[in-house]
Amino acid sequence: MINEHKHIQVYKGNIVHSPSIDRLETMENGYLVVNKDSVTGMYQKLPEKYQNCAVRDFGHRLILPGFVDLHFHAPQFANRGLGLDKELLPWLEEYTFPEESKFKNLSYAKEIYPQVVHALWKNGTTRSVIFASVHKDSTKYLLDLFIDSGLGAFVGKVNMDRNCPDFIVEDSTQSLSETLEIIEEYSNKSPLVRPIITPRFVPTCSVPLMEKLGAFAMDHKVFIQSHISENQGEVDWVKELHPESVDYASIYDQYGLFGHQPTIMAHCVFNTEKEIQLMAKSGVYAAHCPNANYNLASGIMPVRSFLDKGVSVGLGTDVGAGHQVSIPKVMTAAVQASKIKWLESNKTLEPLKLAEVFYLGTKGGGKFFGKVGSFEPDYAFDALIIDDRELGTLDLSLTERLERYLYIGDDRHIEKRYVAGKEVSEPKKTS
Amino acid sequence: MINEHKHIQVYKGNIVHSPSIDRLETMENGYLVVNKDSVTGMYQKLPEKYQNCAVRDFGHRLILPGFVDLHFHAPQFANRGLGLDKELLPWLEEYTFPEESKFKNLSYAKEIYPQVVHALWKNGTTRSVIFASVHKDSTKYLLDLFIDSGLGAFVGKVNMDRNCPDFIVEDSTQSLSETLEIIEEYSNKSPLVRPIITPRFVPTCSVPLMEKLGAFAMDHKVFIQSHISENQGEVDWVKELHPESVDYASIYDQYGLFGHQPTIMAHCVFNTEKEIQLMAKSGVYAAHCPNANYNLASGIMPVRSFLDKGVSVGLGTDVGAGHQVSIPKVMTAAVQASKIKWLESNKTLEPLKLAEVFYLGTKGGGKFFGKVGSFEPDYAFDALIIDDRELGTLDLSLTERLERYLYIGDDRHIEKRYVAGKEVSEPKKTS
Repeated sequence: MINEHKHIQVYKGNIVHSPSIDRLETMENGYLVVNKDSVTGMYQKLPEKYQNCAVRDFGHRLILPGFVDLHFHAPQFANRGLGLDKELLPWLEEYTFPEESKFKNLSYAKEIYPQVVHALWKNGTTRSVIFASVHKDSTKYLLDLFIDSGLGAFVGKVNMDRNCPDFIVEDSTQSLSETLEIIEEYSNKSPLVRPIITPRFVPTCSVPLMEKLGAFAMDHKVFIQSHISENQGEVDWVKELHPESVDYASIYDQYGLFGHQPTIMAHCVFNTEKEIQLMAKSGVYAAHCPNANYNLASGIMPVRSFLDKGVSVGLGTDVGAGHQVSIPKVMTAAVQASKIKWLESNKTLEPLKLAEVFYLGTKGGGKFFGKVGSFEPDYAFDALIIDDRELGTLDLSLTERLERYLYIGDDRHIEKRYVAGKEVSEPKKTS
Repeated sequence: MINEHKHIQVYKGNIVHSPSIDRLETMENGYLVVNKDSVTGMYQKLPEKYQNCAVRDFGHRLILPGFVDLHFHAPQFANRGLGLDKELLPWLEEYTFPEESKFKNLSYAKEIYPQVVHALWKNGTTRSVIFASVHKDSTKYLLDLFIDSGLGAFVGKVNMDRNCPDFIVEDSTQSLSETLEIIEEYSNKSPLVRPIITPRFVPTCSVPLMEKLGAFAMDHKVFIQSHISENQGEVDWVKELHPESVDYASIYDQYGLFGHQPTIMAHCVFNTEKEIQLMAKSGVYAAHCPNANYNLASGIMPVRSFLDKGVSVGLGTDVGAGHQVSIPKVMTAAVQASKIKWLESNKTLEPLKLAEVFYLGTKGGGKFFGKVGSFEPDYAFDALIIDDRELGTLDLSLTERLERYLYIGDDRHIEKRYVAGKEVSEPKKTS
């Protein structure tokens, strides 16, 4: 009996998760049985066969799935909260590109990137999808840092070979060879941390570069991330650059970068109906980044339209255009933004409920990683242990305690973080 | 020499304040000379005559004016983050009124109100304008708590005698007599804490009640606060209740509650041009509460229109419809909201700059208290000492450090709070 269950861990507490966008499941004083890295089952009464397993009892605490961030620019971390009186294109020129260019020096990456990994850990983001910079060595360093941390991540070396300042523009050939080097070195190095193909966005990627990156993705089965339709100025620029294309999405699609491997497109503020349908058909994920879209005065993504058409949607902080690393802050911003969208749409696009955005910030984004983001059987045990006593009475439903934590809690209330069955200890903030 | 300056305190640090909405003033390693409760001057080099005064040197730290919150419902504190999938009127019925009714019992006030004062202290809100509940004893208790704390506040016993549930509706006569009792007892009890006339809003106040409250305000020179035009449903309801009136503002105006004494009106999302002009003419303050307006799906106040027409605008958290006690969080939400308003208005209403909302959350609201909210001569020395090293490099301009702190800092970075020249120590969280 004991041998058969030697890899079993049982956790007890007040469990909340979302198996689907319309179903928040709660269980008071429930048991989560975990076998090595993944969940075996969730039980109100511990089954007989696990009676001899040790139970870790978290008492009054909440047990939530870890948070998933689908869009985060690691080299913009030090710029959080700066330059936000600007729109996208001037903000890129004046703040973002100069900051990113500093990561040419590995020593600067060694100063900043440990802070990034620490901040994700601190805020309960157990899985993230990361833009690094164009620099190979800094990107490898960041991949290694994530591997050491125990957190899950996709990390992409950025590709950009046109329409950007001299100090950051890449030579196309070198961009491709360095990308390939990272793919080969890191694709099988860690079960939790993987490289991802990362063309910045159409305006800064030449056609041959996009073509080759699409081919790399197919040949090496590497996932893809980019940006789409964040800002009206950007959309207009893409139209000018590619008058031959019917829309923004079809440019990525034409070059094998739109769902040919699992793909995330960040922002999606101005996509056409046809583009949304293509995303649904091709399984392209939309990363909704409401804070960033507010900060750069871009607009509000009509999330409800994407959900209604069957697009997979997750949440992104979009640090540094988004100032907050916390996914709960993005969840509540997403609810707020959807309420304004509801008013703007003459009440046709129904506001997002808190339970819906909780799904988007856990399983909605987690699906990109596989079976991640809920406590269903076979799902990775990614979990947060939350002590919310400081927030007020515990004499509430678990749904209300979740709601309150998401609105007014912060990192101080997270006691423990687990990824794939292992507790993740605090990473160092300095290299 | 020493005798002449015996009440002088000198503070040294990196000073940032806003003497006017279009002027953020910064001084690195500057000196603030404070005489008893107020500022004498701000100097890059300490004048000869103060050379013998002791200098409190805060080194690299920022010295900011304390934050001012013009709209906060103390008895909704325990409801922060709950019920926010609803609009104003159902939210009032289902969450707010039942919670407020608990303050009939002083013992419940003794459980919750110390947490309110503590939260304001913690978040650097040195002055606030507070709605209590309809209950006299709880309201007096809250006034006493503020007096003991050293923070500045206006605290109002709420008046409401119609259109609300039996368990909270007041008898008009009793409402008035209790209000008068509080005014008489507290008007001269403390230089920092004063009662304020607080009709909840037109829908819940009968005409005779409003008439008498207006008369009290005039007779006793008591300031006034209420709500206006938060939500379309509310505006429609007011129209139904008062078909004789040309608009919402004119109802308050008719009964002496619209600038006849200094007055704050919270929300102002749907005011007409004519109402805005009346506010400007009558010196009525608008309390902008963007978080609450998002949360209850009300809409976005066109702040720029109010500023352009000369209305005094300050910021409000509107706890509990607003979930966050922090005024910096309201400042950044106000910038974000104004960017959406800019897009909605076809780019006619220019977005608020961060420096502008910093003014609104300090001197903009502070003016309601007198000379409060900046470090100009004769202004009350209300100050926060901020240690922002944890947020990143200090090799930035003070404007950038302010911006970064407002976007990504929190209460953990506030080291000290001063009100009217005195350091305010941490209040107890329990009675």
